Amino acid sequence: MTDHAANAVCDLFGIEVPVVQAPMLGFVTPAMVVAVAEAGGLGSLSLAASGPEEARTTFAVIRRGTSRPVNVNFLCHQPAEMNSSREAAWMAHLKPYYAELGLDCHEQRMGPAIPAFGDAQCGLVEELVPEVVSFHFGLPAPDLLERVRRTGAKVISSATTVEEAIWLEEAGCDAIIAQGVEAGGHRGMFLHGDVDTQVGTMALVPQVVDAVKVPVIAAGGIADPRSVAAAFALGASAVQAGSAYLLCDEANVSPLYRKALQSVRDHQTAITRIFTGRPARVIANRIVRELGPIENDAPCFPLAAAPLAPLRAASEALGSAEFMSLWCGQAASLAREGPAAKLTQWLASGCTCNAALDTA
Amino acid sequence: MTDHAANAVCDLFGIEVPVVQAPMLGFVTPAMVVAVAEAGGLGSLSLAASGPEEARTTFAVIRRGTSRPVNVNFLCHQPAEMNSSREAAWMAHLKPYYAELGLDCHEQRMGPAIPAFGDAQCGLVEELVPEVVSFHFGLPAPDLLERVRRTGAKVISSATTVEEAIWLEEAGCDAIIAQGVEAGGHRGMFLHGDVDTQVGTMALVPQVVDAVKVPVIAAGGIADPRSVAAAFALGASAVQAGSAYLLCDEANVSPLYRKALQSVRDHQTAITRIFTGRPARVIANRIVRELGPIENDAPCFPLAAAPLAPLRAASEALGSAEFMSLWCGQAASLAREGPAAKLTQWLASGCTCNAALDTA
Repeated sequence: MTDHAANAVCDLFGIEVPVVQAPMLGFVTPAMVVAVAEAGGLGSLSLAASGPEEARTTFAVIRRGTSRPVNVNFLCHQPAEMNSSREAAWMAHLKPYYAELGLDCHEQRMGPAIPAFGDAQCGLVEELVPEVVSFHFGLPAPDLLERVRRTGAKVISSATTVEEAIWLEEAGCDAIIAQGVEAGGHRGMFLHGDVDTQVGTMALVPQVVDAVKVPVIAAGGIADPRSVAAAFALGASAVQAGSAYLLCDEANVSPLYRKALQSVRDHQTAITRIFTGRPARVIANRIVRELGPIENDAPCFPLAAAPLAPLRAASEALGSAEFMSLWCGQAASLAREGPAAKLTQWLASGCTCNAALDTA
Repeated sequence: MTDHAANAVCDLFGIEVPVVQAPMLGFVTPAMVVAVAEAGGLGSLSLAASGPEEARTTFAVIRRGTSRPVNVNFLCHQPAEMNSSREAAWMAHLKPYYAELGLDCHEQRMGPAIPAFGDAQCGLVEELVPEVVSFHFGLPAPDLLERVRRTGAKVISSATTVEEAIWLEEAGCDAIIAQGVEAGGHRGMFLHGDVDTQVGTMALVPQVVDAVKVPVIAAGGIADPRSVAAAFALGASAVQAGSAYLLCDEANVSPLYRKALQSVRDHQTAITRIFTGRPARVIANRIVRELGPIENDAPCFPLAAAPLAPLRAASEALGSAEFMSLWCGQAASLAREGPAAKLTQWLASGCTCNAALDTA
């Protein structure tokens, strides 16, 4: 079962070990993608917030570093709805923090928006021709998706429920990331808006595996060989790890963020909308604890990001991580620091669970 | 690793397969406990709400049915604090539902309270001498715990975080149930009050395994052999299943509840305080959806249970499960209906994952 399934994803992407490094916009370097690819896994780079020149330059660095398959990631959110009264109300909530840090909040504007995948991004895919294209928050419109598929790229996206997995399969995904509630960063949820009913990896993966025919990539709580073996036992054909890669040497992670990741414990993360407007799991620092109860008042994704940026910058300069969006899953403490290649191999060593289970 | 660990729990309890049937107050019958025990697992009966005569009678039925080890469960909550203004405010929230169902809410009182484990319950343990005693919501006071231990009973309790697991080990637990957020019914949380930071099974189990020396029993999302294999891959030495046993022939489950369990999907449960005052995972029916946003106004455990009872009875008589506390985990749909013995054997067939993983 496992060998066959593992082969399904390795064969699909043309990789050697069924380990996917999560894209993690802003924190992944070309060096990380190259290292993961050269170790036989699937390195992933988000171009969601990159202009075309930056995207070309970054991607060229990766192509010079490795001839192996790589994954490029984009976001498929609905364009943000501006709502000036909501945004003003949110700024009023942030005003005391601006004052505390000696900042002027009158100059602050929402945005700039991270664009959803559109014609420009699709053109980049057609130009750069990555072997795999992954989406978050669903999939792009059918015509755009068809253009991506015509490049030969394999297409994947994240499901947080069985219903989303079935939707993605019917829309043509070649594989589906089953993102359990343990996962750090943004929930991929796109059919469901209720965070309270999001499903743990242990429960989600086998139910998704039973519901779809395409291979399933388990995400959420994947940070050591035990969790990889567990994912395979649940029927996954591959795993995706995020927080574990943030601790790698190649990660573009600030010293304060790294320190927080190194000391975070199992019950110190929470899902919040305050940082971008969409639910994401982060370390529960001061701003999460204080604004969490009113997080539903936050502006639409990604408008909420801008007004927190000055607070983050000012507090970081003072040596504080209490206003930072410390994206982090629930199993970060299991990961080992070191080179990304070594982490990839270590995770791959968990793909050994060959239980022949009676689940028919 | 796995064989050794499995043996640790089987040896500890004197059972043959490392599968624990969760106590599930009110829904477990003596026949279920006997069937699980005779199948080699650990059957569990909650005596938390039983008077001494009822407890003796029920336990005698079990002892006549099997000579194998059984587990008796009690609750260790703090005694409920009455707060008449909070309780009146809560009744005001419920008043429209009483009116809708043609009930008079003026006669309604909070309580009766389920007693926490005390001298009377300890006397029952000394009299009945179960082989295993499990607690939920922490542990009893040291003198009571010492009396339990002197009977020869092995003592276990649930941890929802690493910190709780360490606390339970230091207090003398012989094994620890690591209860992931997927689990149905009441969260065992006793050091932490924040549901939003509760940890998924995939992330919790390995972190607990690393933190304690005693064997770990994985709970939450355990409903088929794949999840059992996954739990063992994570380092667990045994599993506890709840919702899966609710679907067994021997379960004391009403037709409406059974129907709900048979059709529930992965993302249709939520954790709420409205039914008892303590956080518990249930199927998100109408009363959960409507009162969920104000659940923090609910009275202390277990006071909140009483005022919902008339609503449940009246609506159940009308064929509706919309006011019932439909305790349910996130993986109920994976379970197979049938006799409890067969379920126990099926789950035990998952204890086959012998991955030798490099986690040192």
